[in-house]
Amino acid sequence: MYDSGWQIDPIEKIDLADQIISKITTMLFEGKIKPGDKLPSEREWSEQLGVSRTSLRLALKALEVLGVIDIQPGSGVYISRDNSRLLINPLKFMRNIYEIDAIELWETRRTIEVALTGLAAQKADEEDIRILDGYVEQIKECTCGSDFSDLDAKFHKAIFRIARNRPMEAVMLSIDRILHRERYELTGVIRSEVPALRDQSWRFHYELVEALKENDVVLAQEKMLEHIDQIENAWRATGTQQRLCTGGALSER
Amino acid sequence: MYDSGWQIDPIEKIDLADQIISKITTMLFEGKIKPGDKLPSEREWSEQLGVSRTSLRLALKALEVLGVIDIQPGSGVYISRDNSRLLINPLKFMRNIYEIDAIELWETRRTIEVALTGLAAQKADEEDIRILDGYVEQIKECTCGSDFSDLDAKFHKAIFRIARNRPMEAVMLSIDRILHRERYELTGVIRSEVPALRDQSWRFHYELVEALKENDVVLAQEKMLEHIDQIENAWRATGTQQRLCTGGALSER
Repeated sequence: MYDSGWQIDPIEKIDLADQIISKITTMLFEGKIKPGDKLPSEREWSEQLGVSRTSLRLALKALEVLGVIDIQPGSGVYISRDNSRLLINPLKFMRNIYEIDAIELWETRRTIEVALTGLAAQKADEEDIRILDGYVEQIKECTCGSDFSDLDAKFHKAIFRIARNRPMEAVMLSIDRILHRERYELTGVIRSEVPALRDQSWRFHYELVEALKENDVVLAQEKMLEHIDQIENAWRATGTQQRLCTGGALSER
Repeated sequence: MYDSGWQIDPIEKIDLADQIISKITTMLFEGKIKPGDKLPSEREWSEQLGVSRTSLRLALKALEVLGVIDIQPGSGVYISRDNSRLLINPLKFMRNIYEIDAIELWETRRTIEVALTGLAAQKADEEDIRILDGYVEQIKECTCGSDFSDLDAKFHKAIFRIARNRPMEAVMLSIDRILHRERYELTGVIRSEVPALRDQSWRFHYELVEALKENDVVLAQEKMLEHIDQIENAWRATGTQQRLCTGGALSER
């Protein structure tokens, strides 16, 4: 065997698709592409980047599954505007691979929703309060169960937005989608079987907004904690399995 | 134009790569494949699933970027054992796309680390305490700055694990990796410039473990909050830019 006296380390191949993803990440960071932007066609882009369409397709599929881009057949490829999509698939996989149970999701929900409520109490401005007051008014007058569910969901999402913390907002929106079926069933129970609970629910929304108006962080957090405990207890009473049913891998659009 | 009198909706094409990802998700959920398992070769698997190797490659690349699988060139494809990898790329993209700033990451860290500390105080068993005591002893005797950093990181990771809430643990581990450079610089400052701060840091670790031994949730959370505030203040004092520098898209292994 020929011995040159020195050793050659093999050249480390950097995956081309990974390089394309890094390139797109950098362009996003530098603001060259923004949420809502349409990306060039596959042909145009593969020419600009000097890569094969196969490699580009690999990168785009990965970015789609991550929730970074929307591929709309017949229309084009867009940078997603919805930051919550980024965490839905990871949380689904976490649940599926590591058998995350509902107790862990409820602990997470309680922690983050209470924290966001505290931040909302600090940060809510007049326009925020006007929007929340509107929901409270609609919740009071609402007699239809599915409308009630929708209003309730919108109210909670408004609180997350007002808190202005997007990592925690994204975690909550993802957990919310995962727990969505349960939430719907519970608000259904509240509507149809125990009218007193609907009144209790309205009162919670009303009192929470009053606490936000006063920037009363402690009271707002107490109200939210009590509310989550009530829902969790109702959820436990329905005897839902602790290991949740799973949907498919990809987030619904 | 020929008018049949009825409308034909176009057939919705379900992307083959998406179907493969769903299939793998289901297999994970059903426990047919588990973390650490080696997947069949590309050729074998594409035959078993009845799909082209191109489609399989698209699905595997997406799952790799998500952190679900590790592709080890020359060895094979494995289901990842590291649940924190699932959130690193999504949080990086969130930061890059939506310009998440450091304040939001610190708010998130404070919320989740304090919550995990409370859960750890409830759940720590004798073996957990033995491990933490070991770290406290090593931290006391440690004089090397980089060792100190490593021990500190291990201590915090142990707290996350003891809390036994994997969604929140994964969020914390991901934020930790993103804030890693700052953490390292800060512990460097503690070591080399202000020895009194190192003593203060040791005292924090010691007192926190004492609170965990007593299952004192409130005290443990107070200690952790104080500790995070100190680090955040030190971080602010270094004048680090609020918008963090970004690394590449793919998580380091």
